[in-house]
Amino acid sequence: MKNEGTTPKIYEADQEPRAVVSNAVIRRLPRYYRYLRELIRRGENRISSLDLAKLMNVTASQIRQDLNCFGGFGQQGYGYNIHYLYAKICELLGVGEGYHAVVIGAGNLGRALVNSPMFERRGIDVIGIFDIYDKIIGTSIADIEIYHINTLEQFCKQNQVDIAVLTLPKSGMDEVVSRLVSCGVPSIWNFTGKECEVDPSVTIVEDIHIGDSLMTLCYELRERNIAQKERT
Amino acid sequence: MKNEGTTPKIYEADQEPRAVVSNAVIRRLPRYYRYLRELIRRGENRISSLDLAKLMNVTASQIRQDLNCFGGFGQQGYGYNIHYLYAKICELLGVGEGYHAVVIGAGNLGRALVNSPMFERRGIDVIGIFDIYDKIIGTSIADIEIYHINTLEQFCKQNQVDIAVLTLPKSGMDEVVSRLVSCGVPSIWNFTGKECEVDPSVTIVEDIHIGDSLMTLCYELRERNIAQKERT
Repeated sequence: MKNEGTTPKIYEADQEPRAVVSNAVIRRLPRYYRYLRELIRRGENRISSLDLAKLMNVTASQIRQDLNCFGGFGQQGYGYNIHYLYAKICELLGVGEGYHAVVIGAGNLGRALVNSPMFERRGIDVIGIFDIYDKIIGTSIADIEIYHINTLEQFCKQNQVDIAVLTLPKSGMDEVVSRLVSCGVPSIWNFTGKECEVDPSVTIVEDIHIGDSLMTLCYELRERNIAQKERT
Repeated sequence: MKNEGTTPKIYEADQEPRAVVSNAVIRRLPRYYRYLRELIRRGENRISSLDLAKLMNVTASQIRQDLNCFGGFGQQGYGYNIHYLYAKICELLGVGEGYHAVVIGAGNLGRALVNSPMFERRGIDVIGIFDIYDKIIGTSIADIEIYHINTLEQFCKQNQVDIAVLTLPKSGMDEVVSRLVSCGVPSIWNFTGKECEVDPSVTIVEDIHIGDSLMTLCYELRERNIAQKERT
């Protein structure tokens, strides 16, 4: 690989791993993870940066740059070892760290997430679901029990909780977030649509705004409609 | 506003609107939309770029740059007229264009989306839901009828469909996508987790990979855990 000698290798013991990889690269890694998983499923063992680029619809130079960040897994004329690259990206992304998650809000979205292979595939164990409706407390979704939100503190004392997934209505968010922070839950995956304001040095928050993606789509739709009208 | 004289004003009749605004700015607009909506809800009328920046946790210069793209709605010493800015962003994002959407897949995720205020709030009318399970055909979710997927072509002939929301399992995606393209549905909002490969000059696709956001969270969690171990 070009520049291999000067590329920072983040897992050398004398280097700070966190300083090297840009946020933009991190955001792109899950996409590599998905494509590599698919290649493994198909029984592939290696792939050139050019073929990977074609598959992922990006430039080969982008791929080389991104993957060089992690110490250049590729070899000139051989390409990338898919299994090695996949394992390395999994390690970087914390897949298989055995994180425990709880889901707060057993509505349709909570159910959809718990029923999807999303957590299991990333090595995350959903260990409890919380809600306020008495009639569903004690039932389960995908074999995971639904507990009353009143028992959240007790549950967090008895279990390691790494991630809280917020699928409750936004009106209840602030209170739940402050309780989660008090319990020492280190990270929040927030679907409420309301931005979650916590001290970022204490709690990691990933807000997911599904509607933003819909608006981007509408923007493109409108632009295309305008362009078509202009042409006719 | 600085540089106001040289900032391209995209709605001047002699200019091509699509060429001016970068993709990065477009991606940020929905966030402005959310914050401005909240300010309007609180009864605010105007806001300085500095206050808006503080609220949104970005720099004032970023805000001025972003909003200048659309012709500089701000006035030195007065700030932004919130209602005007909101209306302009709504217009740009196609809110209120009266788009029609169909949802393909009436599982938990489809239900969660249809039940959320997401579409209505953006002026999008969900006019039908499609599924394959006979026992739910003819029932409805939030007053929207569930039709059999076999009737998709007929439905698209009789109704204008601008957006197809894919919440079906990924195994059924390719077939449905090719049928939607044949029906002339111009845009697809894809939740299947499988990337949707269509001719981008014909069909607009917005893929949403919820799991990518989870992996970013896990990455940050792992980095923080490493940093904490190193400190102790």
